[in-house]
Amino acid sequence: MRIALDAMGGDNAPDEIIEGAIEAAPLLDKDDKLILIGPENLIKEKLSSHKADKYNFQIVDAPQVIAMDEKPVDALRNKRKSSIAIMAKMAAQGKADAVISAGNTGACVAACQLRMRNLPGVLRPGISVVFPTAKGPVTICDVGANINCKPINLYQYAVMASLYSKHVLGIENPTVGLMNIGQEDSKGNETIKKAREMLQSDNKLKFIGNVESKDIFNGKCNVVITDGYVGNVVLKLAEALVGFLFKSIKTELIENHKLLAMAFGPVMKKIHKKYDYHEYGGAPLLGVNGNMIICHGSSKAKTIKNAILATITYNKKHINEQIVDYLEHSSIRSYDDQGQ
Amino acid sequence: MRIALDAMGGDNAPDEIIEGAIEAAPLLDKDDKLILIGPENLIKEKLSSHKADKYNFQIVDAPQVIAMDEKPVDALRNKRKSSIAIMAKMAAQGKADAVISAGNTGACVAACQLRMRNLPGVLRPGISVVFPTAKGPVTICDVGANINCKPINLYQYAVMASLYSKHVLGIENPTVGLMNIGQEDSKGNETIKKAREMLQSDNKLKFIGNVESKDIFNGKCNVVITDGYVGNVVLKLAEALVGFLFKSIKTELIENHKLLAMAFGPVMKKIHKKYDYHEYGGAPLLGVNGNMIICHGSSKAKTIKNAILATITYNKKHINEQIVDYLEHSSIRSYDDQGQ
Repeated sequence: MRIALDAMGGDNAPDEIIEGAIEAAPLLDKDDKLILIGPENLIKEKLSSHKADKYNFQIVDAPQVIAMDEKPVDALRNKRKSSIAIMAKMAAQGKADAVISAGNTGACVAACQLRMRNLPGVLRPGISVVFPTAKGPVTICDVGANINCKPINLYQYAVMASLYSKHVLGIENPTVGLMNIGQEDSKGNETIKKAREMLQSDNKLKFIGNVESKDIFNGKCNVVITDGYVGNVVLKLAEALVGFLFKSIKTELIENHKLLAMAFGPVMKKIHKKYDYHEYGGAPLLGVNGNMIICHGSSKAKTIKNAILATITYNKKHINEQIVDYLEHSSIRSYDDQGQ
Repeated sequence: MRIALDAMGGDNAPDEIIEGAIEAAPLLDKDDKLILIGPENLIKEKLSSHKADKYNFQIVDAPQVIAMDEKPVDALRNKRKSSIAIMAKMAAQGKADAVISAGNTGACVAACQLRMRNLPGVLRPGISVVFPTAKGPVTICDVGANINCKPINLYQYAVMASLYSKHVLGIENPTVGLMNIGQEDSKGNETIKKAREMLQSDNKLKFIGNVESKDIFNGKCNVVITDGYVGNVVLKLAEALVGFLFKSIKTELIENHKLLAMAFGPVMKKIHKKYDYHEYGGAPLLGVNGNMIICHGSSKAKTIKNAILATITYNKKHINEQIVDYLEHSSIRSYDDQGQ
């Protein structure tokens, strides 16, 4: 397969991105091809300094760069020659089978929607991230693509993330929980209540009802559905809190128990690795007509390498075809379609 | 002051609640009085078994109990003789200067609004919790009283939580951040955008703009404003994640580094204590015409003792008078009032 990689995406671009491609290259099949998108001369220079010319990457020139904090729609309008814009265009034109970026998430989502469009039947795509828990991985959708969710969007996230959980993570009958602030059916706003009705009426989904944020890490369900605003809050909070706690433990040990700190170092690293998003690679934007993998803004070479390898596995599972097939046979439509 | 304590509130009621009262009793001034509300005979029996008759608690009989998972409004309608209903009524009638409960949060909020009403000028009360961070305490408001927030509610939470942060926590000029999913002004839904305009137009507030959930624990600001849905998600996630991580560390150490596990035990306890909500007591429901302190559902005797002591300190700061005065002199009104 042909994987287009945004060489300019993320806080550590282009160095870590290009190094990630170099690390992944020897692990690929001969039919797999990496396409690096960004300023051509810069990429060539970096590859040359790593003596990586042998890998025969395809380079597509994209002289413009969208910064991490630019307004997505304005940026895409003004920077048609940016790596993100060109990457999405290549996917839309069938010149790439998958695209990967650690750049401006909003711009990636907007570019994909604009160029690649959604899968038939999908109203809004959603970003799915996988968190480790004591009882295996949990998939959360959406974590930031869509902050104004309608009930039908939440229903479709449940369908797409369940298919992802089943076919990519290998969980046979993934259970689905709807993020809420209490377990009782009476909890939540109107959007959540209507989404719950939709989820309850689809008996192909293994819907277990409301779950709370505290349930994410206790393995209560395999898939957690939420709007992109709350999902984004959860994602960033979890990451920051883990960092904060590890730092607190380290500070306490170094100040008061120097010997213990030395012995604890390797243990902490091991645990950190277990819960490190760099290991997971990236998060798919489920629902677009193509394969878009969004990586963390602070991705390092390892993250990019893992994202490339995960994308190949993901691509083999043909999730998109299954999403289209599922929604085609689902009787659940948006309230708007029903004139409600 | 007279503090009414819901003896039947929370997962560990009545034992831990009554024990908390007994632990606090010797620390009170002679003018302070604890009122225990719940089934009279049960309370007397518990006090007697602890040989605590000497403390001369006032007991107010409330034969009914609202369970943690009951629907708040229905429960209050059907259980007029519950501890929560009677507690709020006593506060409204001036028979208690403050009320404390670890019971059904929704029922506490509803009972206070129904009986005590809001302070003049306040449209919706908000629950304020304090989190420890590396740079001192951060106050988050609201964490669950109001899930359908309007811009004016968010503005008023900023006012109330700033006054709380200043006068109760002693932070001279508390900085205020608005929870969002990005720092740029363009981020967020319409409610958040309008709230930001209101916050920006009040130069008495030290508003620093949007903050993200990751900023809560890095001490970026002293006060974080959010709607009750997102605040509740943050509160429960933070608590669960801390527990999950400590458990993971413990498991890893016991399995692979037994000696290190023994040495690390006391260190972990120390850190845990530093970030333990039991130490903080309770969270005030800011904006009601009275003093309502909401404790965690899993409160133990120590939590209740600390909540009683914190309530006395809190009461001395006369936050309510300051909230009323501030809002009376603020030119910022709801969009509805302005016909918008």
